[in-house]
Amino acid sequence: MGNEIRLSDLAARVGARLSGEGDAVVTGVAPIEEAGPGQVTFLANPKYLHFARTSAASAIIAKDRVEGARAAFLLSDNPYFAFACVVELFHPPVRRPAGISPLASIHPGASVGKDVTIAPFVVIEEGAVVGDRTVLYPGVVVGEDAVVGEDCLLYPHVVLYHGVRIGSRVILHAGCVVGSDGFGFAPSREGYRKIPQVGTVEIGDDVEIGANSAVDRAALGVTRIGRGTKLDNLVQVGHNVVIGADTVIAGLTGIAGSCRIGSRVMIGGQAGLAGHLEVEDGIILGAKCGVANTLHASEARVWSGTPAIPHPAWLRMSMLLPKLPELFRRVKRLEDAKIPKGEE
Amino acid sequence: MGNEIRLSDLAARVGARLSGEGDAVVTGVAPIEEAGPGQVTFLANPKYLHFARTSAASAIIAKDRVEGARAAFLLSDNPYFAFACVVELFHPPVRRPAGISPLASIHPGASVGKDVTIAPFVVIEEGAVVGDRTVLYPGVVVGEDAVVGEDCLLYPHVVLYHGVRIGSRVILHAGCVVGSDGFGFAPSREGYRKIPQVGTVEIGDDVEIGANSAVDRAALGVTRIGRGTKLDNLVQVGHNVVIGADTVIAGLTGIAGSCRIGSRVMIGGQAGLAGHLEVEDGIILGAKCGVANTLHASEARVWSGTPAIPHPAWLRMSMLLPKLPELFRRVKRLEDAKIPKGEE
Amino acid sequence: MGNEIRLSDLAARVGARLSGEGDAVVTGVAPIEEAGPGQVTFLANPKYLHFARTSAASAIIAKDRVEGARAAFLLSDNPYFAFACVVELFHPPVRRPAGISPLASIHPGASVGKDVTIAPFVVIEEGAVVGDRTVLYPGVVVGEDAVVGEDCLLYPHVVLYHGVRIGSRVILHAGCVVGSDGFGFAPSREGYRKIPQVGTVEIGDDVEIGANSAVDRAALGVTRIGRGTKLDNLVQVGHNVVIGADTVIAGLTGIAGSCRIGSRVMIGGQAGLAGHLEVEDGIILGAKCGVANTLHASEARVWSGTPAIPHPAWLRMSMLLPKLPELFRRVKRLEDAKIPKGEE
Repeated sequence: MGNEIRLSDLAARVGARLSGEGDAVVTGVAPIEEAGPGQVTFLANPKYLHFARTSAASAIIAKDRVEGARAAFLLSDNPYFAFACVVELFHPPVRRPAGISPLASIHPGASVGKDVTIAPFVVIEEGAVVGDRTVLYPGVVVGEDAVVGEDCLLYPHVVLYHGVRIGSRVILHAGCVVGSDGFGFAPSREGYRKIPQVGTVEIGDDVEIGANSAVDRAALGVTRIGRGTKLDNLVQVGHNVVIGADTVIAGLTGIAGSCRIGSRVMIGGQAGLAGHLEVEDGIILGAKCGVANTLHASEARVWSGTPAIPHPAWLRMSMLLPKLPELFRRVKRLEDAKIPKGEE
Repeated sequence: MGNEIRLSDLAARVGARLSGEGDAVVTGVAPIEEAGPGQVTFLANPKYLHFARTSAASAIIAKDRVEGARAAFLLSDNPYFAFACVVELFHPPVRRPAGISPLASIHPGASVGKDVTIAPFVVIEEGAVVGDRTVLYPGVVVGEDAVVGEDCLLYPHVVLYHGVRIGSRVILHAGCVVGSDGFGFAPSREGYRKIPQVGTVEIGDDVEIGANSAVDRAALGVTRIGRGTKLDNLVQVGHNVVIGADTVIAGLTGIAGSCRIGSRVMIGGQAGLAGHLEVEDGIILGAKCGVANTLHASEARVWSGTPAIPHPAWLRMSMLLPKLPELFRRVKRLEDAKIPKGEE
Repeated sequence: MGNEIRLSDLAARVGARLSGEGDAVVTGVAPIEEAGPGQVTFLANPKYLHFARTSAASAIIAKDRVEGARAAFLLSDNPYFAFACVVELFHPPVRRPAGISPLASIHPGASVGKDVTIAPFVVIEEGAVVGDRTVLYPGVVVGEDAVVGEDCLLYPHVVLYHGVRIGSRVILHAGCVVGSDGFGFAPSREGYRKIPQVGTVEIGDDVEIGANSAVDRAALGVTRIGRGTKLDNLVQVGHNVVIGADTVIAGLTGIAGSCRIGSRVMIGGQAGLAGHLEVEDGIILGAKCGVANTLHASEARVWSGTPAIPHPAWLRMSMLLPKLPELFRRVKRLEDAKIPKGEE
């Protein structure tokens, strides 16, 4: 990237304390198993401690010095945050130049802000609004009356159905769909009758949603994703779900209709939430867990399993499960030994 | 919406019995926690009974009157169906005006019906057929020789591979893929050899499929989804699967190759079905269940867990699982107390 | 199809031994439950043995003759492979004619090989490279500096983010996304801060990836999918994952960041792998399993359950689980019978 920074300057710019030679110059950032001289790296995971010890990197971002390491250290109480800042310094975001492709289809009744980037084959329908400096990659569809805020990034083939509202600085990855019909059908003798899904979706500022995820519009009212919340790839959010702020949801998780997920919740991959339940603020859901009822933070902070139970109980249970055959044998032995013949 | 309807008229039009003041006029429909004067609402879930009691709505659609509620009631044996009718009355479907965008790419050898809507950047390939009044949103791709019936809605970026056949009144949500290759590879010493997937897909009338779902074409023969069946978002249907009529399948469910799913089956979210098995008519599969063998309705109607067992047995088992550590302790205590020293 | 082949010729061309009348002529291939005179079929699954016995097909590809069957047999040690060859003989791949649609948007700074097919509404950005004879279906997006090898098939709406590298003879199905940002955010007092994802993705030769799957780019470094590996639909591959050669991964599986999956691994549908773990060469993971730690092939070849344990142990455990209520009763009975009154 051509960036050259003295370690002492780097420490100052990212709010880290330098432990080591401040005059050394670094020019890039690399993973801990690959970083060499002139590079900064990051100790994320205790599993990689041995890499830190032998690393030829010029500096390692970490919470504490690693005994025996040759590198300098950039020490931070929030090393992952410091790492984010360092990566950004060496890789400042490259914005697509502003401009509207003549190959886009923009309805004259749509409203497009200043300095937007609109790639080929984008469709902006009647009444839609696109905020200043927002970037629409190829094939993005902004439906009728949909509203996109400022400084958003909508990657290729993102689809916003009619009327949905997206905040500012929102990132939607390729193939993400917002505002598709909720899954609602009334059984009748002639088969299912579709419940018209006439609500909408509102997505707060600074939200990021992964590739090929889908957020359904409300049947009535609003499906809502709060400010700063992050969804991974292939996540399904049902109709009328309300998610708070700064919640993170990992890939392939499914949230059924009308769930209320709090703020600062963390949900592991492939978790599933049945409809009409609540997950309170700050709760952590393990990967693959299945939630069938409302979870209260006062009862437990971390939940696992299907149906989800407090994580420590799940852990104890999981470790005993493989011993079940042995337990059956032990009970059989007790029965054989202890029940005098003729008694049963 | 400007619609004004007297409650007595509304009751008559949706086939409900009115309990309350018939002259009151309603102008819209709202969720039960929000509905106010002039609005109709719907009591879906016993959890929301307290909302019904205090609601200021003009009328509530329900199976029975709620004690103490001030609202009038529209009583129906199938309240969810009545609700669907009411929503439709206040929100009649708005059809995109017919017309073919000059920005679409339609092969001269394709056949397009009357009063169709074809948005910009739609591609219709050679030999494809699109029925009357069908709406193709931006970016839809109708592959060679694919056939789409009448009055269908294909939302943005739906992809139909070559030769697949879609019935009438079918709704495919954004990013849905129909006819991709099944997952079939023959192992050999030089790695996997692709089994050409030369079959096709047939989707019956009145089917709806959610956003970013994928239905694979058959290896040989036909992958089939029966009339009136509804699939949620992010559902995977493998090659040569046959699904009956009026079956509903919730999000993130995966159905492996050559399964036969009956009619009026209900499958919860994130369920998984191994290949080459059968699920008989009317069976209900719990969310997240894993089906490894054919399920007979005569054995149980509702199945849960992995591997799936009859739901009542699964429920009993699930409630005991967290007590497993205690059971181990109890067995240990029995062993300690009862096995005389020296015997083992 | 028009293809007519004598059985003796067919056997020779696919390397099978003929058992039966070599002069018979076959003209097509069909599933075993449908195949009739003049058709070849395939005995894949012992479940279908009864079809083989009564089949009117002219020939059946199988490992061994089926007692009592009237058909001729094409015997092979690898019948699935022979079947692939036979299907290909009767259904040779039909390639879209080469040519570049005037409706595609190709940056003058992109490099496009010989005899490529570029459909309408394809976007190829600056610096991208597309190899000879590669086919880009409608709506494919090849991002800046992305490289696609020779003889690839990219189905509609495949999205390659900037800089990713795809080998030769790679097949990417509709809606597949390669190079989206990994899921990395540093918590801070002001909410999450995005870790810039500045790495890339490399996909080896002969890889196939299913519809609507997503492969994230590395945070730093490279997310890698090895030669010949096959991914089904709706699979999620996190950032910095490394997958070996000839591995197969079934639908709706999620692989969290920095996992290392070996070669010739087989992963069932809806499996989930937590981050930063290793799955050694040749391991088989059951459908729906949840892997929380590194799996060593020396410990077990097949793993199942959540958390994953060796498959035989999981099987024993799974068969005992429904008997848990009975076990609780048996322990209670032992306690009642054996603990003298007054002792507790």
